[in-house]
Amino acid sequence: MYNVDYEPIGRRGLCSGDVSLLDSARDMNVDIVSICGGVGSCGRCVVQIIAGKVSKPTLEEEAELGDDALREGYRMACHTYPLGDVTVRVPPESLTAVQRTQVEGLHVDVPPAPAVRGVDVSLVVPTLHNPLADDVNLWAALGRQAGRIDYAVQRSLAEELRVREWQVCVALRGDEIIAVGAPGTRWLGLAVDIGTTKIAAYLLDLESGSTLASRGLMNPQIAYGEDVVARIVTAGKSAEDAARMQKLLTDALSQMTADLCSEVQASPAQVVDAVVVANTAIHHLFLGLPVRQLGQSPYLPASSTALDVKARELNLKIGTGAYVHLLPNIAGYVGADHVAMLLATRIASAPVTTLAIDIGTNTEICLNHQGRLTSISCASGPAFEGAHIRFGMRAAPGAIEHVRLTGDKLEIQVIGAESPVGLCGSGLLDVVAQLRINNVINRGGKMGEHARIRRGAGGTEFILAERPGLEPISVSQKDVRELQLAKAAIRLGIQALVEAAGLQEQDLQRVIIAGAFGTFIDVQSAVTIGMFPPIPLERYEQVGNAAGTGARLALASLEQRSEAQRIAGLDGYIELGSVANFSQKFSDATFM
Amino acid sequence: MYNVDYEPIGRRGLCSGDVSLLDSARDMNVDIVSICGGVGSCGRCVVQIIAGKVSKPTLEEEAELGDDALREGYRMACHTYPLGDVTVRVPPESLTAVQRTQVEGLHVDVPPAPAVRGVDVSLVVPTLHNPLADDVNLWAALGRQAGRIDYAVQRSLAEELRVREWQVCVALRGDEIIAVGAPGTRWLGLAVDIGTTKIAAYLLDLESGSTLASRGLMNPQIAYGEDVVARIVTAGKSAEDAARMQKLLTDALSQMTADLCSEVQASPAQVVDAVVVANTAIHHLFLGLPVRQLGQSPYLPASSTALDVKARELNLKIGTGAYVHLLPNIAGYVGADHVAMLLATRIASAPVTTLAIDIGTNTEICLNHQGRLTSISCASGPAFEGAHIRFGMRAAPGAIEHVRLTGDKLEIQVIGAESPVGLCGSGLLDVVAQLRINNVINRGGKMGEHARIRRGAGGTEFILAERPGLEPISVSQKDVRELQLAKAAIRLGIQALVEAAGLQEQDLQRVIIAGAFGTFIDVQSAVTIGMFPPIPLERYEQVGNAAGTGARLALASLEQRSEAQRIAGLDGYIELGSVANFSQKFSDATFM
Repeated sequence: MYNVDYEPIGRRGLCSGDVSLLDSARDMNVDIVSICGGVGSCGRCVVQIIAGKVSKPTLEEEAELGDDALREGYRMACHTYPLGDVTVRVPPESLTAVQRTQVEGLHVDVPPAPAVRGVDVSLVVPTLHNPLADDVNLWAALGRQAGRIDYAVQRSLAEELRVREWQVCVALRGDEIIAVGAPGTRWLGLAVDIGTTKIAAYLLDLESGSTLASRGLMNPQIAYGEDVVARIVTAGKSAEDAARMQKLLTDALSQMTADLCSEVQASPAQVVDAVVVANTAIHHLFLGLPVRQLGQSPYLPASSTALDVKARELNLKIGTGAYVHLLPNIAGYVGADHVAMLLATRIASAPVTTLAIDIGTNTEICLNHQGRLTSISCASGPAFEGAHIRFGMRAAPGAIEHVRLTGDKLEIQVIGAESPVGLCGSGLLDVVAQLRINNVINRGGKMGEHARIRRGAGGTEFILAERPGLEPISVSQKDVRELQLAKAAIRLGIQALVEAAGLQEQDLQRVIIAGAFGTFIDVQSAVTIGMFPPIPLERYEQVGNAAGTGARLALASLEQRSEAQRIAGLDGYIELGSVANFSQKFSDATFM
Repeated sequence: MYNVDYEPIGRRGLCSGDVSLLDSARDMNVDIVSICGGVGSCGRCVVQIIAGKVSKPTLEEEAELGDDALREGYRMACHTYPLGDVTVRVPPESLTAVQRTQVEGLHVDVPPAPAVRGVDVSLVVPTLHNPLADDVNLWAALGRQAGRIDYAVQRSLAEELRVREWQVCVALRGDEIIAVGAPGTRWLGLAVDIGTTKIAAYLLDLESGSTLASRGLMNPQIAYGEDVVARIVTAGKSAEDAARMQKLLTDALSQMTADLCSEVQASPAQVVDAVVVANTAIHHLFLGLPVRQLGQSPYLPASSTALDVKARELNLKIGTGAYVHLLPNIAGYVGADHVAMLLATRIASAPVTTLAIDIGTNTEICLNHQGRLTSISCASGPAFEGAHIRFGMRAAPGAIEHVRLTGDKLEIQVIGAESPVGLCGSGLLDVVAQLRINNVINRGGKMGEHARIRRGAGGTEFILAERPGLEPISVSQKDVRELQLAKAAIRLGIQALVEAAGLQEQDLQRVIIAGAFGTFIDVQSAVTIGMFPPIPLERYEQVGNAAGTGARLALASLEQRSEAQRIAGLDGYIELGSVANFSQKFSDATFM
């Protein structure tokens, strides 16, 4: 029996060597498309082998996929058998159900002040008596002193002007021409929040600042490790792996941009500006910056200032001479996504003592007390994403997301109203809170007695759902411990900030909960298990993907970019590891 | 018998299919290195087949050269036989004699004000208590507000700082860090004048502005056509050929930079600035800009403003984030090299009516009359380079460069004091002038009678040198006609400028002759054949490679770059084709 790991959906299980990857995926409820039923004729169940050994490609696969795809590890799941432990990437197009990711967020409402503006111009038709060079002609038509023309634009300019018969629309960024298109071209911008696990992307109309389309997708780098530490280690060891991780990400972003554009009948060539936010490690992996020093004390970013990089240097397929703007990082574990969150929540100008929390694989927290911003980063781990939880899974159809226990009566809510196949983070949070309220577990998290509690193969476990012919879905004692570690990290972070400001938790007037996971949790449950402090519930506010909103703000307005830099400069941050009596406090924080 | 064309040395001849390229090259006095004597064991006689069919590679060649080189057309001349007409490129390293190219020029003497300056800095060693991001640390050490860091520099910065233990020298260009090296790094600059036929390159110390080394080499694009029109046609037809021409040129420049650097114990990584000048077509081919519109009326440059392009976008191997600066073009046939010549000769501030002539495959002329600059371009053709002349060759060892005829007595001067193998441009000019003085040819250029005149295979010809066992070297009636066409184009250009200014040729107070060819000609001969106007000889001044000097000036000083832009803006230019009664005047100008 081998371990098979399906990414980015995040399901793992055992599989014997005589069971195809398609069948084992089905056993684990990974919904891979298969129209022909696994006989190798439809070519739809394509997966990519990221690590590990599998059976040799068959003739059917050679015919269906071709040599190039086979070389890159692409295989038909129905014809591939594991020969050892394997990590398998399931591309989005091979999944039947689209995963639920979070793109909604705070409403963007700033006066548009984009970095790139479109200008329609009419050039003089040159003659022997007025033989204007193309670039001189263009600047004259713009009524400006000659500035810069992007090198790639310069290379295509002559043809562009002639094909469009000397009538064009110019995308102007400061004094640089970064794209040329048909008159009246609608120039677009791309805002992206790259999370360790999930990516949220938005397509904006640059002139109006309005969001035209949005998409969520999984970060394909997840195949190289679920948390940033694993990816830092891998990238730090091998420049090749680092390059592969960068390519996986930029290819996914290019594809997603094309998808977003086709949704609004536009072309990626119209995308002439982009803002990307991410945590510091992902920011560096996206840019191909070195990350080894991020993984070692004193955890230094190679770059913490705001950057503008030509998209083509990153191999990101958008408008000809477009730049990607990256908001500044604050520290090794407090990244540009945190800055974006601070920007979107307006915490810097909050009139009362306010805390903002962005829960993810890393959880970043910021406190504004009397205008002084302090942030902290906590390694809360991927438990909320379903990792290391026996029936854990991400928030996809079939995931139990909410639970209520009244005595012996259990009610469950499943995403997509389907038969349950696992448990996502908000569901786990609810289960543990309900068990605590019903005294099925004690303050220390130890499971006691209940009609639904069994001593099974996985130790003591609480049965959530029986499944005919299959093992019941349950939460184990070990799962409860995993959640305790995650929630303790977050609570400890909150306490450290509050203490550093000379406050008590009760002094928090407002707590903003940002991020995809934070949107779906039951705040009462989070308070019950002690992840959040016991303050009145009305002080909590769930705002959705604030980092994505921050990216959109910075895309829509140069003033917002300046504001982001100002905020990043304001923010002090403290290291969780430097808190006095860390171990004792951490242990205390695991209690419920 | 097949035509074989050896480039860039510019020798052509007939060769039968059973004579190897090495042997046929020797027959034509192309000195290809061969240590083993042509048995295929030394691997030194490497040539590149540019066009035409040759015999299949032998096992020796496969072993010596490898598949990649064979695919690119590289072959061993001793093992390769023509199967049809062939164009063969002889790489410089396969030539025994280095050709004489012109790098000397006007003395550069401006106060250095380079675009890039080196700054030694000492960074703070970061700790957990002072965890400065690398870029923030660097800007702080520079004592400046954060500017830009070149993307490639950013990618290598983390390692650079750690390897150099936080002590580095930064190459700063405005607000952008474009390279980082060891403390005390001597930053260098490259100035290049790319001619249609020849390239002159200079390595400068940026801090002092002094020239450290210089080299001349042939433009390898010559295999795609001797004049720019041929190259424009080829590049306009096939994007692949255009890309290949660009690569040939940038590869040659990269190699030459490495050679120049090793001459002064430096590395190309130290070259952090470059200035390139060329005529408009070569400028465009170097940048990969479209050239088709340059070849069609109204002959428009894609770009005529000064440009700064990242060297890596051109695949030019110099310092990490270095830019290449290109001086502005004036028009389709009046390029940046002309601007450089105007800059170097200081013609814009000449106190008297002054003419400057840069003779090449294209000849550009500029008149300053009372502060008004007007330029013209004349297609004088490659006759001066030896093309279309029966025994023509470039100014390489063995070329007859000067001739004196007194009655029947002929004296010749040969480059390198070797046995004569051909005739270069200045030699041809001298011969025709001497024939005219001695009345061997009449004003119309028709050959009369002389002891040395024969009616041979090539028609009527004047014998310059007998060679035992070989055909004598001669100048034919047709060669005289070729020279007449070339000199008429130049004279007509001078006349057109003078007339447009309402002057007569006698009003020219000073005539500056620039360019490699112009350095070596006998001015008296040029006046005798009517290429230059009959004004007192002391008004003529030969200044060497002024375009190369102009490139060096622009490299040494930003003020000189501004001055170049000012001059380019000042300059009016006229089209030779638009001169009234062009045909009649041209015909008149062929007389001597």
